[in-house]
Amino acid sequence: MQAPVRIAVTGAAGNISYALLFRIAAGDLLGGEQPVILQLLEIPPAMEALRGVVMELEDCAFPLLAGITTSDDAGAAFADADYALLVGSKPRGPGMERGDLLKDNGAIFSGQGRALNDHAARSVKVLVVGNPANTNAFIAAANAPDLDRSQFSAMMRLDHNRATAHLAQKLGIHHADIRKMAVWGNHSATQYPDISHALAKGERARDMVESQWLEEHFIPAIQQRGAAVIKARGASSAASAAAAAIDQMRDWALGTPPDDWISMAVCSDGSYDIEPGLFYSFPVTCDGGRYHIVRDLDISDFSRRRMRITERELQEEREAVKGLVQVVQS
Amino acid sequence: MQAPVRIAVTGAAGNISYALLFRIAAGDLLGGEQPVILQLLEIPPAMEALRGVVMELEDCAFPLLAGITTSDDAGAAFADADYALLVGSKPRGPGMERGDLLKDNGAIFSGQGRALNDHAARSVKVLVVGNPANTNAFIAAANAPDLDRSQFSAMMRLDHNRATAHLAQKLGIHHADIRKMAVWGNHSATQYPDISHALAKGERARDMVESQWLEEHFIPAIQQRGAAVIKARGASSAASAAAAAIDQMRDWALGTPPDDWISMAVCSDGSYDIEPGLFYSFPVTCDGGRYHIVRDLDISDFSRRRMRITERELQEEREAVKGLVQVVQS
Repeated sequence: MQAPVRIAVTGAAGNISYALLFRIAAGDLLGGEQPVILQLLEIPPAMEALRGVVMELEDCAFPLLAGITTSDDAGAAFADADYALLVGSKPRGPGMERGDLLKDNGAIFSGQGRALNDHAARSVKVLVVGNPANTNAFIAAANAPDLDRSQFSAMMRLDHNRATAHLAQKLGIHHADIRKMAVWGNHSATQYPDISHALAKGERARDMVESQWLEEHFIPAIQQRGAAVIKARGASSAASAAAAAIDQMRDWALGTPPDDWISMAVCSDGSYDIEPGLFYSFPVTCDGGRYHIVRDLDISDFSRRRMRITERELQEEREAVKGLVQVVQS
Repeated sequence: MQAPVRIAVTGAAGNISYALLFRIAAGDLLGGEQPVILQLLEIPPAMEALRGVVMELEDCAFPLLAGITTSDDAGAAFADADYALLVGSKPRGPGMERGDLLKDNGAIFSGQGRALNDHAARSVKVLVVGNPANTNAFIAAANAPDLDRSQFSAMMRLDHNRATAHLAQKLGIHHADIRKMAVWGNHSATQYPDISHALAKGERARDMVESQWLEEHFIPAIQQRGAAVIKARGASSAASAAAAAIDQMRDWALGTPPDDWISMAVCSDGSYDIEPGLFYSFPVTCDGGRYHIVRDLDISDFSRRRMRITERELQEEREAVKGLVQVVQS
């Protein structure tokens, strides 16, 4: 048996984590040979519910689950963590302004960034799931000066998977026959799901659909899919978000399939003229535990406009939280 | 790629199914090479919520998920099903008598038994999760005269896993180091979790614990674990029940590990002097898609008394539903 790896999960008593933890413990993240220790973080009022989740994890007798810790202290939860899934965030309450949402979460993620900086394994990989995910990742990374920005990402895989499935359905083929979907920008309604480079059974998917369907149906449907799920299910996406978190972290850690890529929000290096430092979703490949932004894709004017809109939103979000990122300015 | 198998799940919009479906679609039940088609059954008022669950399943773009159907008709949901997980049942409402609970569920499971009889694959394996699980399995099997009783089982794996984990915790070892736990009887508070034959790192576990701990702590703790989880989590066990359903069906289909067994409620053949025909949990091994009750274990007087108590409860449950099982009398 390999030595266990430490996986920290925040918001561990919440709905997404409830769909996530049991799959991680079953081996869905790192495979059936890799023991894991779960290090679970919650806020004090949720610790009793978390105790119930831990009871259920114990009750599964998962062969790969080597241990569980719980804490309401981020430093303890992140101690020596090899992977950190930052799922917990403050949800938008009734009448809450977007600026206040950004600031409240900014305070959470700046603290978690510092705790990761001070306590996590030096090779830690951090995936931010809690919204606003891109800006939360930006803040966490900015507050972790001893870690590399490339150790942080925000989750875009749910959007990527949704776009892949939606296009496959339109074309009447299985989603596994779609490759090279790309979702650019922010995990928000400004995201740009882009089929310009997508292949359907190896052929250019863009040639198979009408522009009208793309603009009036596909792009808005992916941008607003979360709201559509809430409307039908009466609750926000949890199991599909958990599945996407597993997909993104697994591919980051273990590598993307050959001849394909995934969408992942990472620190911009200026590729595609996106402002450096923003956590922006690009198509990336992964190998050896590192991601590489896919270079030199042709970008149409249609795409460029949409990539700018979502970039602008991320710039505005950064402005709203600038007091929380002193570290990045130094 | 292998041809897809059809997996029917009832109560598909409920909490256990929400924890179950995504794991099945990810390959946790039948492995990473076996495509699956999910055939989901719900009652009409839950069809809109089920539509939301299906949206989320689509949004995952699971490579192994070859299709999804939904219906409020059991015959449609069970059509050609290779596996059926009967998760949905009527929960006990406030002030409801146990007899009424048995009868209401009896009506559901007699109908589902007939639908399985008429529509499922001839080799279907049926796992009843919905409570009262043993008697529901008894009723379903009794109403499926063209299928063999050995194609039905009720879930005892949650109790088995809980007992394994609990004993391991007491002994300060990992639960994977415990083998040959047995849970006898009914999935209820009368169940008898039995460590008489259990091995801890290959040694007799019974010799490592006090009788007082066994009688006053271990047995009641396993019997009442469900209530303890509800108290802590504020909701009944869902993800651990889903994990146990996967474990039980997987081991039944693909085989139990060498030198170990599992606990599974199956149609008694009179082994251990348990009344034939009752769906009673025994230690079983599985291979080639069939279970075999473990024979000739020494049963102490202590064990015998507890095995009788839970047998008696199953006999009483059968009496309460006898109008629903004409087929079994013929």
